[in-house]
Amino acid sequence: MQPLNNISVLLVETQSAGNIGSVARAMKNMGASELILVNCQTELTEEATHFACGAGDILERCLRFGSLEEALGRFNLSIATTSRRVEWIPRVYCPNELPAQLANLSPFQKVALVFGPERTGLTNDHLHLCQWLVTIPSNPQFESLNLAHAVAIVLYELSSRRVKTSPGRSLQLARLDQVEAFFHDLQASLIEIGFLNREDPERIMGTLRQILARAILERRDVSILRGILRQWSWYAGQLTRRKSQPR
Amino acid sequence: MQPLNNISVLLVETQSAGNIGSVARAMKNMGASELILVNCQTELTEEATHFACGAGDILERCLRFGSLEEALGRFNLSIATTSRRVEWIPRVYCPNELPAQLANLSPFQKVALVFGPERTGLTNDHLHLCQWLVTIPSNPQFESLNLAHAVAIVLYELSSRRVKTSPGRSLQLARLDQVEAFFHDLQASLIEIGFLNREDPERIMGTLRQILARAILERRDVSILRGILRQWSWYAGQLTRRKSQPR
Repeated sequence: MQPLNNISVLLVETQSAGNIGSVARAMKNMGASELILVNCQTELTEEATHFACGAGDILERCLRFGSLEEALGRFNLSIATTSRRVEWIPRVYCPNELPAQLANLSPFQKVALVFGPERTGLTNDHLHLCQWLVTIPSNPQFESLNLAHAVAIVLYELSSRRVKTSPGRSLQLARLDQVEAFFHDLQASLIEIGFLNREDPERIMGTLRQILARAILERRDVSILRGILRQWSWYAGQLTRRKSQPR
Repeated sequence: MQPLNNISVLLVETQSAGNIGSVARAMKNMGASELILVNCQTELTEEATHFACGAGDILERCLRFGSLEEALGRFNLSIATTSRRVEWIPRVYCPNELPAQLANLSPFQKVALVFGPERTGLTNDHLHLCQWLVTIPSNPQFESLNLAHAVAIVLYELSSRRVKTSPGRSLQLARLDQVEAFFHDLQASLIEIGFLNREDPERIMGTLRQILARAILERRDVSILRGILRQWSWYAGQLTRRKSQPR
């Protein structure tokens, strides 16, 4: 079994305390320990402890955030679990493909596994914040897995498979808050120059996110991209000042 | 996803109706449909239906047996899920090895996946009735998986992996009731000849079971073995009769 020290489980808008407990149990079984609750819809009642069945320590140490974007800030890679078919996310994996993919990363990169609410799963807005999608193969007539079953299957795959690290350079991914800060600045700039409609920037921003998700941004990539935006802003400021100077 | 038509889930002495429901849901997610309850310790209450969450049809069609031996009768291969370390069962697989192993069988062989009671897991007596063991890799300090999580993981492995059928001859396994009938006759014969102690035949029978489990018996193998026992019995009868004849 591989230790899963760099992997956290993020539960978004979970409704059932029993499911959270059951997720904690599966995490402890598989050697993962950081549980993050995003905009959680329930208290951690006795039902949670009952279903955790000895993994109460994971519940006690869990972190809470109000939004997925905020929760993802300190991670390097976010992987969303969904059965939703989307066209605009480039990398969709089966769970058994994840270990080989993750073997390309340097081992200290923090990875977030993101799971959606019980009834609806993750929305497109959530998925836009994630770089990879993972879909657990299931019966097309009865696709919706129990939340804890899905967590158990994905963690099982990650912990049970030994994958040789690829011989090449291992990637040093950017932190996702840096990536989001870049997208924030980019959107502002593109609205500023009239490329994006201030009322409806999402569609085109989605496409841009898609392109960069496919790229898997490293730290230095994000530095460069943010540097371009800063330089551009400075240059626009210069132009404005020049214009407003008396001739 | 591979259909799991030839695979049944056997739950032995399950205590919790919720777990049975949750297992039914995982089965339906993964395309399995035959659920068998062995010496079940609970009624299928509303809790079962609640956790089945749309897979109530699997609960309604479930079969019930009083003992594992009886339940296994019509199967060709039984695979026990356990974290128990036993020395006397020869083939212990990780779930991800099962698809390749099963690909060697002809597709119409009936396979039983056997899962034990929540608190204790399968006993040695149960394991003696099974040919293969499968152990889900887990945290040595916190090994005990929730029953439905274990079912979900094993079925996920079986349904999600496409394995090329091996080019060789596919095995035509014996039915397990035929195998058990053979062991029954063998034990009687061995007691009869004084090889086994009538009070305590289990230890040596366990070793014999182990040897034949490793062999994976085909139909014709069992015919031959039973034929030997029958012939032997006939011969012993002849000897007895000859002895008792006046000289």
